Amino acid sequence: MTMTQAVERLYRIQRELQAYRNVRGLLYHDASTAAPGKSAASRGQTLAVMEQASARILCSGECRELLAYLTPRAEELPRRERRMVQLMDRERRWRDAVPEEEYLSFQKLLAVSFEIWAHAKEADDFSMLEPFLEQVFAACRRISAWAAPDRPPLDVWLDRYEAGLTVERCDRFFDVLRTGLVPLLKRISAAEPEGPEAEYPLEAQRLLSHRIMDLMGIDRNHCALSESAHPGTTGLTKYDVRITTRYQKNQFAPGLFMVMHEGGHALYELHTADEDAFTCLGAFASMAVHESQSRFYENLVGHSRPFLTFLAPVLQEYFPQQLGGMDEEQIYRSVNCVRKTPIRMEADELTYPLHIMIRHEIEKRIFSGELRVKELPQAWNDLYREYLGVEVRSDREGVLQDCHWAYGSIGYFPSYALGNAYGAQLMQAMKREIDVDRCLREGDLVPVNGWLEEKIWRHGARYEPEQLLESAWGGTFDPGVYLRYLEQKYLNLSCAQ
Amino acid sequence: MTMTQAVERLYRIQRELQAYRNVRGLLYHDASTAAPGKSAASRGQTLAVMEQASARILCSGECRELLAYLTPRAEELPRRERRMVQLMDRERRWRDAVPEEEYLSFQKLLAVSFEIWAHAKEADDFSMLEPFLEQVFAACRRISAWAAPDRPPLDVWLDRYEAGLTVERCDRFFDVLRTGLVPLLKRISAAEPEGPEAEYPLEAQRLLSHRIMDLMGIDRNHCALSESAHPGTTGLTKYDVRITTRYQKNQFAPGLFMVMHEGGHALYELHTADEDAFTCLGAFASMAVHESQSRFYENLVGHSRPFLTFLAPVLQEYFPQQLGGMDEEQIYRSVNCVRKTPIRMEADELTYPLHIMIRHEIEKRIFSGELRVKELPQAWNDLYREYLGVEVRSDREGVLQDCHWAYGSIGYFPSYALGNAYGAQLMQAMKREIDVDRCLREGDLVPVNGWLEEKIWRHGARYEPEQLLESAWGGTFDPGVYLRYLEQKYLNLSCAQ
Ligand SMILES: [Zn+2]
Ligand SMILES: [Zn+2]
Repeated sequence: MTMTQAVERLYRIQRELQAYRNVRGLLYHDASTAAPGKSAASRGQTLAVMEQASARILCSGECRELLAYLTPRAEELPRRERRMVQLMDRERRWRDAVPEEEYLSFQKLLAVSFEIWAHAKEADDFSMLEPFLEQVFAACRRISAWAAPDRPPLDVWLDRYEAGLTVERCDRFFDVLRTGLVPLLKRISAAEPEGPEAEYPLEAQRLLSHRIMDLMGIDRNHCALSESAHPGTTGLTKYDVRITTRYQKNQFAPGLFMVMHEGGHALYELHTADEDAFTCLGAFASMAVHESQSRFYENLVGHSRPFLTFLAPVLQEYFPQQLGGMDEEQIYRSVNCVRKTPIRMEADELTYPLHIMIRHEIEKRIFSGELRVKELPQAWNDLYREYLGVEVRSDREGVLQDCHWAYGSIGYFPSYALGNAYGAQLMQAMKREIDVDRCLREGDLVPVNGWLEEKIWRHGARYEPEQLLESAWGGTFDPGVYLRYLEQKYLNLSCAQ
Repeated sequence: MTMTQAVERLYRIQRELQAYRNVRGLLYHDASTAAPGKSAASRGQTLAVMEQASARILCSGECRELLAYLTPRAEELPRRERRMVQLMDRERRWRDAVPEEEYLSFQKLLAVSFEIWAHAKEADDFSMLEPFLEQVFAACRRISAWAAPDRPPLDVWLDRYEAGLTVERCDRFFDVLRTGLVPLLKRISAAEPEGPEAEYPLEAQRLLSHRIMDLMGIDRNHCALSESAHPGTTGLTKYDVRITTRYQKNQFAPGLFMVMHEGGHALYELHTADEDAFTCLGAFASMAVHESQSRFYENLVGHSRPFLTFLAPVLQEYFPQQLGGMDEEQIYRSVNCVRKTPIRMEADELTYPLHIMIRHEIEKRIFSGELRVKELPQAWNDLYREYLGVEVRSDREGVLQDCHWAYGSIGYFPSYALGNAYGAQLMQAMKREIDVDRCLREGDLVPVNGWLEEKIWRHGARYEPEQLLESAWGGTFDPGVYLRYLEQKYLNLSCAQ
């Protein structure tokens, strides 16, 4: 094999792997939008074959040989190709470490346990899910032992979603937040106005979504919007991104800000580099970085005071009856009211990280052996009382609300909170170079997109998240930026009443 | 290898191949419904990888070894497994005969030529497409020579869609039709009333579609309806079927009968045998048999006089203003008016097979060398004048109207007309056992579905089309049945005026 042949093969294998990734993405997206209600089992068969086929490519003799050839020659490769080898080898080692049987039985377990979770949630009965969750946590423990026998299981899983993340780093991050937020919440809560309840016709909400997508500069030739009970973003390739939202009849805010959230994710995927398409670099740096982009648009742009100056008249155009009587300050306040809800997905910016903290705390206790699965609901409810001052009235509104654990996404939650914090620090850095407030007041998002594309989007997965972010904001990660942003925003909101 | 191991492998390989078939189906369905406008090139990359992967499974040493083991032992296999081996081996031989390079370059050519076709149609400029069509026909000629050097190319391609079909059999079929229909059309045309033009709100049309799907007994848990500019049916598995329709604002009939057409396809896919799911038997006997089911529902049920007794009041319920003043006979006549249109997709039952005949005639002349690609538009227009008495005013309404040739579907068209004829003969046979007219008048489709399931649907691909049909109608194929059905229906319609 010559170097040229090796690089050719490197690209071909990546193209194949990316095709399987696209297909998996489409199967999930279709499942959440267009597929008939009882097609899950049938789709499961297809997914299993696709999973296996792509694992076989990664662990094939051909790929193994290629990586064995290129890894010792990495210094001779250009930076991009070197990074490809690094990422592919990381993934291959993970797949290789876990025996195929273990891996497949894990996939099957997750398919079942995900379905059971939906039934258990509907029935509000944690005991249905408990034995499956038991198995999921046990399997995660075994798998992390295969992959990295000398590291704590939760570290291994955190690192899967955010390379380099550990329990210790999470703890440092959450300690800063908890220390600041729990007392802050006690000071300012219960003083916020409720959002304006009225009928917001779905057709008008849909039109508004398109207006906002255009405003955000999302290229509709490569990004489609549809509706789903479980909104999300699916980037098949940078040329084909799908986002979904969910409208509520009596509130405009959830549907709108969901579009801004998913639109933020979409912009990231759409603006990775052309030459990285169909390679493992044409993706994203980490889940937390991805989440930093969505929350940047949802919160730091969408829910900000200057943007509401622009947005309020737009909203009034679409909902003249419903919002015509309010001024921009009132609308701003209404979309930022603090809700002590037990439901993460309904949380406001201030309480959101507390929801995440609770989940991280529980994951830690499960893996330390301190907490057993059957004690989960009690621990959950206790933590909600302690951090949020909220009484959880049922497991459906408590431990059963999220599917993540049933779906095997252990160690995923911290990405959400980290994404918020990353976003705040990016905004701080952006403001040093751009008059962001003026852009938002004028609804001119071009400079904002330009900055994000330059610093984040176009780099795809070329860098480790830490490296990417530090170079973007020119310094180390400081969760204090995020904390101070929240304190300032919510103290302003509560004293100006 | 033991027989047990071989059979196990047989099922596993089929499960894998079916997964790829499902994925291809989903990619096409998604492309025609939800995908963003400029995602085709990206999707093409994914499709190419999937095509290649599934061809590799079929032509792998493992599969080859399996078929070499089972083929000489076919007698020891139960009928179903014997049929699987036969179908898999047929497909493998086809793929094996064509060199991979030729096959892949054909796929690439089709992707390009399909795109060019769309542009050429839009620009009404056949010369844009001509060189690509030239290449497509040449490639088809080469491929058929690889696959069966001793058979006429068009026979080879006809046989791909309908096993056992030849030019000679097509000719015999079309001769019967032409002899009967061309003079019939001259007698009765120009005397029909135009359909009632009015506004038919899309929302009401959508609700009507759901009502009709329920009436047809289509299981909505396994079959979803959506909208597309290019309606069709995609059977991923028997547990997951998608149909699409397209509504017109000023006519209710196209959207409605499209749903009945695609619904007929869907019923077939949904009612193949459970034990055949995820095998090559869980499909359909041939494209013409598939089309016989869709046209059975669209025409022999949907457009029939007795069904209109049931349907007319239903239509009036959804469109009281628009159709309230008409009686059922008038509505029956309006949906059956004879239109001498140059567009196949707008044709009525009577003229439809003439559109197909023209296409078959042209395919024959191209392959015999009698006609060159650049002479296509002239030949097309001449034949439309001769058979239908229609002047084609532009290539967009003429030779550019269908994508089939540009997409490499050579020899596909006859399936449409054969499907009509098969349907008529199935209806004749059904009427010997069931009082079909009574069922249709009462809107009770359960006995109709029961008969079709028993005779056609549950057998999937277990039999060759001829064998399946002859056993269903108890005799040999007789195109005279179809001809007499058309004569009777349209003579009745024209003299009763
Ligand atoms: Zn997100
Ligand atoms: Zn059809």
